[in-house]
Amino acid sequence: MPHTDDTVFMRLALDKAREGVAAGQQPFGACLVKDGTVLACLYNRVLAAGDVTAHPETQAVREACQHLGSTDLGGCVMYATCEPCAMCFTAAHFAKVSRIVFGARLEDARRFGFGRFPVPNAVLKELAQSPIEVVGDFLREESIALMQRWAGQ
Amino acid sequence: MPHTDDTVFMRLALDKAREGVAAGQQPFGACLVKDGTVLACLYNRVLAAGDVTAHPETQAVREACQHLGSTDLGGCVMYATCEPCAMCFTAAHFAKVSRIVFGARLEDARRFGFGRFPVPNAVLKELAQSPIEVVGDFLREESIALMQRWAGQ
Repeated sequence: MPHTDDTVFMRLALDKAREGVAAGQQPFGACLVKDGTVLACLYNRVLAAGDVTAHPETQAVREACQHLGSTDLGGCVMYATCEPCAMCFTAAHFAKVSRIVFGARLEDARRFGFGRFPVPNAVLKELAQSPIEVVGDFLREESIALMQRWAGQ
Repeated sequence: MPHTDDTVFMRLALDKAREGVAAGQQPFGACLVKDGTVLACLYNRVLAAGDVTAHPETQAVREACQHLGSTDLGGCVMYATCEPCAMCFTAAHFAKVSRIVFGARLEDARRFGFGRFPVPNAVLKELAQSPIEVVGDFLREESIALMQRWAGQ
């Protein structure tokens, strides 16, 4: 179920994704928030870093762990402009992230050549019996519009 | 199907895992090899780095990408003392790793408190239609023995 501040934090992630696109990066952003405090907010840096693991969600988990000095991100909410891939979902699971709110679906990203590991969060959650609460399709159209602009459509 | 050099490289990964245990880390190691050259060989640094993503396989993907100056690890073989988790498997998939050879199974690791995302590589490969060739149970007993020593059993 969406919460009051979800729009605020998803817009931060969307703004960060736009910043990434302006810097020549892929159109994805994410932030991690605990008790209303933003612990990390990043855009996809796969191209900039030459690192396939530099998805914004995985980077945010790493940065938030550093920020808190803990590998336990219990109580944190992850806002992702696109549905996290299996790598990012699993990283969030290991870090005990409480909730994921995402915008576009992996199937949306596939229309733009992304989503090369097309396993939805709902499937991963079920397979791993993960306790993470997942809310999808949140400001989905804004995220799709960003991908469309990135693709020059 | 196992190849001639698999034992050599898996032993490197096992030795690295032992080095990690000696340094107070969790009992897992991995290396990435291309055309007989070791591009990366690391142990699990989750505790040392305070980073849930510092599994040896994910670290190896990152390091090998840096080493080659490319996000394409096509032709590379990943040797992992334990079956890669979904995070690491997906990172390998994105990097186009050609083959994964692993020792112990996730279900073995669960006996020691690991494997908190218990989705086997065979299931992930099928779900994502991943072309990665996966060879499991390779020197499995040596990897289990390492976990037993780590656990003081």
